[in-house]
Amino acid sequence: MSGRDWVDAPLAAADEDARHSAEHRQASLTKPPGSLGRLESIAVDLAALQGRARPRVDAVRIVVFAADHGIAAEGVSAFPQSVTAEMVRNFSAGGAAIAVMARILGADLEVVNVGTVVELPPLPGVVNRRIAAGTANAVHAAAMTPQQYAAALAAGREAADRARDAGTELFIGGDMGIANTTSASAVACALLGAAGSELAGPGTGLDATGVARKAAVIDAALARHADGAGDPHEVLRRLGGFEIAALAGAFVACAQQGMPVLVDGFIASTAALAAVRTRPGIEEWMLLAHRSAEPGHDRVIRALGLAPIVDLGLRLGEGTGAAAALPLLRLACALHDGMATFDEAAVSGRVDD
Amino acid sequence: MSGRDWVDAPLAAADEDARHSAEHRQASLTKPPGSLGRLESIAVDLAALQGRARPRVDAVRIVVFAADHGIAAEGVSAFPQSVTAEMVRNFSAGGAAIAVMARILGADLEVVNVGTVVELPPLPGVVNRRIAAGTANAVHAAAMTPQQYAAALAAGREAADRARDAGTELFIGGDMGIANTTSASAVACALLGAAGSELAGPGTGLDATGVARKAAVIDAALARHADGAGDPHEVLRRLGGFEIAALAGAFVACAQQGMPVLVDGFIASTAALAAVRTRPGIEEWMLLAHRSAEPGHDRVIRALGLAPIVDLGLRLGEGTGAAAALPLLRLACALHDGMATFDEAAVSGRVDD
Repeated sequence: MSGRDWVDAPLAAADEDARHSAEHRQASLTKPPGSLGRLESIAVDLAALQGRARPRVDAVRIVVFAADHGIAAEGVSAFPQSVTAEMVRNFSAGGAAIAVMARILGADLEVVNVGTVVELPPLPGVVNRRIAAGTANAVHAAAMTPQQYAAALAAGREAADRARDAGTELFIGGDMGIANTTSASAVACALLGAAGSELAGPGTGLDATGVARKAAVIDAALARHADGAGDPHEVLRRLGGFEIAALAGAFVACAQQGMPVLVDGFIASTAALAAVRTRPGIEEWMLLAHRSAEPGHDRVIRALGLAPIVDLGLRLGEGTGAAAALPLLRLACALHDGMATFDEAAVSGRVDD
Repeated sequence: MSGRDWVDAPLAAADEDARHSAEHRQASLTKPPGSLGRLESIAVDLAALQGRARPRVDAVRIVVFAADHGIAAEGVSAFPQSVTAEMVRNFSAGGAAIAVMARILGADLEVVNVGTVVELPPLPGVVNRRIAAGTANAVHAAAMTPQQYAAALAAGREAADRARDAGTELFIGGDMGIANTTSASAVACALLGAAGSELAGPGTGLDATGVARKAAVIDAALARHADGAGDPHEVLRRLGGFEIAALAGAFVACAQQGMPVLVDGFIASTAALAAVRTRPGIEEWMLLAHRSAEPGHDRVIRALGLAPIVDLGLRLGEGTGAAAALPLLRLACALHDGMATFDEAAVSGRVDD
């Protein structure tokens, strides 16, 4: 099992009493029943996951896992591989999108370097868990050795542990890695039995020729590793990336600890799907933040069985889609907690009640 | 013109230089171009409307217009008419959904009573512009006299003036009025040439029989006022409500003053459509916050030509859909202002650049 036995440990259970209390409270608030739509169901779901009738998502931890991909050598990204490490510096310095959002939202931001090609010095807010200088090229070899794969899963679990120890009420996982839509598409294709052309998209900005080339690269990787397609761990190890495996490990650990996860876009959702395949049931601990503009996301969303909260045409990764949806979760909790009941406000009920 | 000549005064013009500066900045930020989707276009649109390359929506004014509807006598709402005034008290006391949201979002909340049936004492945060004890029943008479209609439009303009004087950077208009989805549906039907059954929905929670009855009531009102259907002012006066006309007046005034509007759901969007028909061009000053669960909203959205930012299944009114979208506008501005450029962060650009 190469040090990944922990994945099979029991999951936390949602609190159905808290869910029922929250449902009862929603029905008593001064609004027509159901009229706050998704803002009602989010509050009720969070109540069940947090085990309290009045949930809160004030303490939020965003962890961005960064790594490079051997498959970048196939020319599948519009940006050079050096950008992965450059963006880790940009996260640390506060200039990247997710850093700005974390600041505005008062969320903790942690960056975990699980394997940039470029070695980085110690940087504020960056945890060094660099497994290797990028994965191997999945067209020619398994992206990770079993030991590397276990280390990537463990890096995710450790991040979830740190989040729990910090009192995190909601966990967001983000990604950075040039070429990682190629790796994630390959993982999703293997899990869903799809061809590269069904899931490949523009990523950071390929044109139609580039997308066609990317689909062919994905198909080549799928063909190379076809004998592992039935085992989600093997799919993730052979076709994924360090940051994708770390996200999967973090999501499993969150479900074991009973910490709700707000899942980001295509990369994070693919990691979530792989994690669910290794450990069915963890999807109960997930809310899906958004629908990405990356075309493969829809297939992954359907397989996850989760409904995205917003659809803003985002396709950046980093956890930015989850960060964008966070204020809606907070409003849902604030409404649930702060609205008056019909009795408290002396507002009349329905005519037919 | 019955005191509504001001509606025809010139509109402010968006600042295309500011738009171009904002577009240029977006292209320089450390992300693939376009990868922040709607969060990019919102920032660019706000830059043009606010006349500055780095827009802000910190100072937000939410004005909820409340009034009663004579057409409630036809039994078209699940709630008794007394709820309108009861909810004004609930807004003032801070227990209503929009009051909770305004508090969490740090937005100013003003309630304008333009015509509750129940007379109310002075209440904190409530401006008294009570035109009458509700409108007349549009099935039998014009909802408003010309003088009442002009007073309702003026109440909206005055609210926009107060918002401008307070330094408002974004205006949100909300509604409260038992039976006002019936009045708004009648207005929308008249403007769009639709039958009641095409737009009538459950409102606060009618069952199928109730919706069918509501559609018949709308058709009766439309038949009664068919000779006014070609004039948007007459449509609004005869079929609308005081709060719907006030919203229309506020939206026209905002466009004249150059204050961007974040349009809420079915009632506010119908008021916006009527306002646009009286004063084409004001739609340039509007962003549409959300797609309501009220089924008639889609037709009104298409006629407005605006794209909703979120779709959360809300159908409460009060401005709650706009309040829910506000954090996304703020994140759009913060990202636009706070992200590093490729040069600042020393991040490499595209391979093909």
